[in-house]
Amino acid sequence: MYKNIKVIAFDADDTLWVNEPYFREVEHNFAKLLSAYETENTINQELFKKEMDNLELYGYGVKGFVLSMVESAIELSNNKITALEIEKILDFGKSMITKKIELLDGVEEVLTALSPKYKLILATKGDLLDQERKLQKSGLMNHFDHIEVLSDKKVQNYKRLIEFLDVKPSEFLMIGNSLKSDVLPLINLGSEAIHVPYHTTWVHEEVDSHDEHEGYKTVKTLTEILAFL
Amino acid sequence: MYKNIKVIAFDADDTLWVNEPYFREVEHNFAKLLSAYETENTINQELFKKEMDNLELYGYGVKGFVLSMVESAIELSNNKITALEIEKILDFGKSMITKKIELLDGVEEVLTALSPKYKLILATKGDLLDQERKLQKSGLMNHFDHIEVLSDKKVQNYKRLIEFLDVKPSEFLMIGNSLKSDVLPLINLGSEAIHVPYHTTWVHEEVDSHDEHEGYKTVKTLTEILAFL
Repeated sequence: MYKNIKVIAFDADDTLWVNEPYFREVEHNFAKLLSAYETENTINQELFKKEMDNLELYGYGVKGFVLSMVESAIELSNNKITALEIEKILDFGKSMITKKIELLDGVEEVLTALSPKYKLILATKGDLLDQERKLQKSGLMNHFDHIEVLSDKKVQNYKRLIEFLDVKPSEFLMIGNSLKSDVLPLINLGSEAIHVPYHTTWVHEEVDSHDEHEGYKTVKTLTEILAFL
Repeated sequence: MYKNIKVIAFDADDTLWVNEPYFREVEHNFAKLLSAYETENTINQELFKKEMDNLELYGYGVKGFVLSMVESAIELSNNKITALEIEKILDFGKSMITKKIELLDGVEEVLTALSPKYKLILATKGDLLDQERKLQKSGLMNHFDHIEVLSDKKVQNYKRLIEFLDVKPSEFLMIGNSLKSDVLPLINLGSEAIHVPYHTTWVHEEVDSHDEHEGYKTVKTLTEILAFL
């Protein structure tokens, strides 16, 4: 099992460190801020729609999220949102960007065990600067041979990455919490993937269960992967 | 001259295509939007200060620029800016992101001439998605072996890139419009650089003339580099 593997790529957000819960927390604070204008349910739904509408323009990451919150706030308040309320939205974003990194359980143990045996890379999507900063703050930098921030995690993005790393797809193993982004595209390419689910998943990353394929392992905690590698 | 060169890296914004003038245009429209609150001169100065204050948090690119405009507008208007005015600022950003690509003179000729002889890469700083989208729209994608979007263009960033490309610094030539970002860090590393000045330079990219070093060429137009390569 996995005996051809030369490169192991790790997803970062919600695989190595906490991320999604911070977005949920800010969404909740955003809804509280706008509670004079709309219900939390409507606010959450409209914000998500706005994020999806803007995804092609803004991509993933905190800055696009903040811009979508500002735009939603204007619409949800029927143009009544005040400058001071918008300033608070900007502050939500800044607090996300400067947030401390909270590593998930077993991350250092796993990377320390695998780095002498494999080429380890970090393959994350989102904002380049945000991801570099988080890696820097995480103290995990030295475990990785290469950092790749992808604008998206579709088959094409992985194909280019694997070609660039000059390995065969079958020599590449991806580990991450998102079935949609970290597992299914790899199975399509003939690479290996291990799914490490996290308790909070963004709706945009969810897949219907009938989209699940055979051909990958699911583990409950990251340290379990050491049994196979 | 340049006979050791194996990899030629091109900057993108204002080297291959027009960029900085679009920021100047939006700054002018931003000042007009806020003309009830402050003079254009004060608005420009305060916006630039805000961008510099936020640079570490937001990095380079349109999204950070828009967030800095919104924050500046709140402060410059003494919290009087309206939701509709802020919506206009968001629209400035979207129009920048969706803007057509205008190639600079000679770009296609130069890339076509060099790509059979060298490994060509694009080395740009800014927002990952923005830069990928611009490259896609430019129609220049096929000329490049690799695209590297850097969060900054300091000596360390180039050092990592050159190591990753597995060439010696002396085998790497960078071509770009910014002395500060595309030329001086390379000279420090023992690489080669050619400066192709552009008529509009962001203040943040300007260097004092006494910071200029020996050891690089300056050409008036991109096509002139073909005489040396």
